[in-house]
Amino acid sequence: MNSWAQNNQPLSGKRVFVTGAAGFIGSQLARALLACGCRVSVLLRRSSDCWRLRDILPQLKIHYGDLSSLSFEEARAGLSSSDMIFHLAAAGIDAGKPDAEAILKTNVLGTLTLLKLARHWNVERFINCGSCSEYGKGHFLAEDAPLAPICEYGVSKVSAGVLAKVFQQRYGVPVVSLRPFTAYGPFEARHRLIPHVILSALEGRDIELTAGEQTRDFVFVEDVVEAFLKAAAVPGIAGETFNVATGRATPVREAVVAILSLMQTPAKPLFGATPYRESELWESSGDPRKAEARLNWKAGVSLTEGLRKTIRWFQENRDRAGATAYAG
Amino acid sequence: MNSWAQNNQPLSGKRVFVTGAAGFIGSQLARALLACGCRVSVLLRRSSDCWRLRDILPQLKIHYGDLSSLSFEEARAGLSSSDMIFHLAAAGIDAGKPDAEAILKTNVLGTLTLLKLARHWNVERFINCGSCSEYGKGHFLAEDAPLAPICEYGVSKVSAGVLAKVFQQRYGVPVVSLRPFTAYGPFEARHRLIPHVILSALEGRDIELTAGEQTRDFVFVEDVVEAFLKAAAVPGIAGETFNVATGRATPVREAVVAILSLMQTPAKPLFGATPYRESELWESSGDPRKAEARLNWKAGVSLTEGLRKTIRWFQENRDRAGATAYAG
Repeated sequence: MNSWAQNNQPLSGKRVFVTGAAGFIGSQLARALLACGCRVSVLLRRSSDCWRLRDILPQLKIHYGDLSSLSFEEARAGLSSSDMIFHLAAAGIDAGKPDAEAILKTNVLGTLTLLKLARHWNVERFINCGSCSEYGKGHFLAEDAPLAPICEYGVSKVSAGVLAKVFQQRYGVPVVSLRPFTAYGPFEARHRLIPHVILSALEGRDIELTAGEQTRDFVFVEDVVEAFLKAAAVPGIAGETFNVATGRATPVREAVVAILSLMQTPAKPLFGATPYRESELWESSGDPRKAEARLNWKAGVSLTEGLRKTIRWFQENRDRAGATAYAG
Repeated sequence: MNSWAQNNQPLSGKRVFVTGAAGFIGSQLARALLACGCRVSVLLRRSSDCWRLRDILPQLKIHYGDLSSLSFEEARAGLSSSDMIFHLAAAGIDAGKPDAEAILKTNVLGTLTLLKLARHWNVERFINCGSCSEYGKGHFLAEDAPLAPICEYGVSKVSAGVLAKVFQQRYGVPVVSLRPFTAYGPFEARHRLIPHVILSALEGRDIELTAGEQTRDFVFVEDVVEAFLKAAAVPGIAGETFNVATGRATPVREAVVAILSLMQTPAKPLFGATPYRESELWESSGDPRKAEARLNWKAGVSLTEGLRKTIRWFQENRDRAGATAYAG
């Protein structure tokens, strides 16, 4: 019995429906759910690049559809009932020039469709993947901190979160919302910060970066996946929202230096070579205490350990690591 | 010179674009803007019942379109540039069985279209009509109180509000958001509480009501309109959100008794004859101090005085008062 399954026996045999399963967190969650003995259905777009799912594709029941336009009626007719929904699909997670309309359609109207489905199926749990971007800027933010997003993606996540809460209160859908901070690890898209640094260093190239003074609460992806499993398995938490955070704010610069030091590479970081984003989030970290108290979850992997695992994975999977950028 | 114009000279000559102009507040705002010397364009649906605008229709420039489906490209091509946008259109304001999809499309995607238009036109001010329903339950709620809506309409208003804020911060659109509490007065739709009580009493019918223990912060519609004019005219408040509230929480029961007492009618209120709504808001009032300090606005009309004016209006306009229910 593997470690996912050991700790999450209540999930064994459950029929679970996962959106965003081709994504960074979703793919590893799908793998973990299979390991827990779940029967896993996924919703994929015809255009999804499934490189992260290649090894488990035969074990998944695949439905094709696009959340930005999928109606409840289509979903109800086309999908077989599940016991739980893990909703991780989202558009625009790191869009430089965001398509606000596509982001709102996928992330808000798409969530509405899934909440209706959850109500129709009478699910045991609807796990809504929120985001630290719901808060905007701040350190050690607790779940009841003001929601002041600074970008369209954050707006869409706030909207989906309050909508899910209304479905919980008004229609009894047992929603649990998670707000992952900055997830990193194996399978992350190659254009994202940590993969970009690792892959550049593997090629011996110097790395153009911002000045790197912004802080992030880096959470190793296996820890994030564990939080999703807990959100599904722990009783008595319907209606609750939890940060998936370590509580530590690490300057981006510090993370980059740590990677390059672990890799013992001649590649140099060129801090300040690229400008900050127009909508750069200056500081971001979450208070992890509620998740520890109620979800029995705590980030177990230190940044150094997580970076070491991530580096090893990219060393072994240089060619495999996402031919195309992750479209979100 | 009328009183609107006296107090709002900065608006004279402005080209203003008003959505929701067929509605309860919007129609009276359109009339006030004309009185201030504005050139008023309005967006109406072909299906809108324009009974509230009949006297001023010839003075308005009318564009037809439906915010739930109007694209930015269509709006840009079809509308001539304005100096200010007053965005009051909304779906689902008192929907018993809400059509969440229609509400989100009109109130969130529709607001997105207008914000893009505001950016394109480089407006001097975008006045976003939010709602007390963004807060959910609570007394003397300040603008920074948690946003915890209890219905789909409230979710859509939270979403539109945070979206507008992002457009202000990220793209410099000078947004001011207002959160009216329970507006009442002449021209209110006949199925709403106060008109229903007045019209029933005028017909000598006893009135079936809930137990009426829920509280509301009743604001006279002329005061609400004045807040919109201030939100457009007062300098230095871009990015701010203001309650449009009196600060007083009045039990519905008390308002009903006050109406019947002012009318000296034999009609009796049958409290408890109808059940509370499934998503009844139990208590609602707003802290008016920020609006007084920054917007130089304060509700000037007492509940008794406002009810007296409202009763007189309905006495004089029994037949005129909305053949059809207000569709929002």
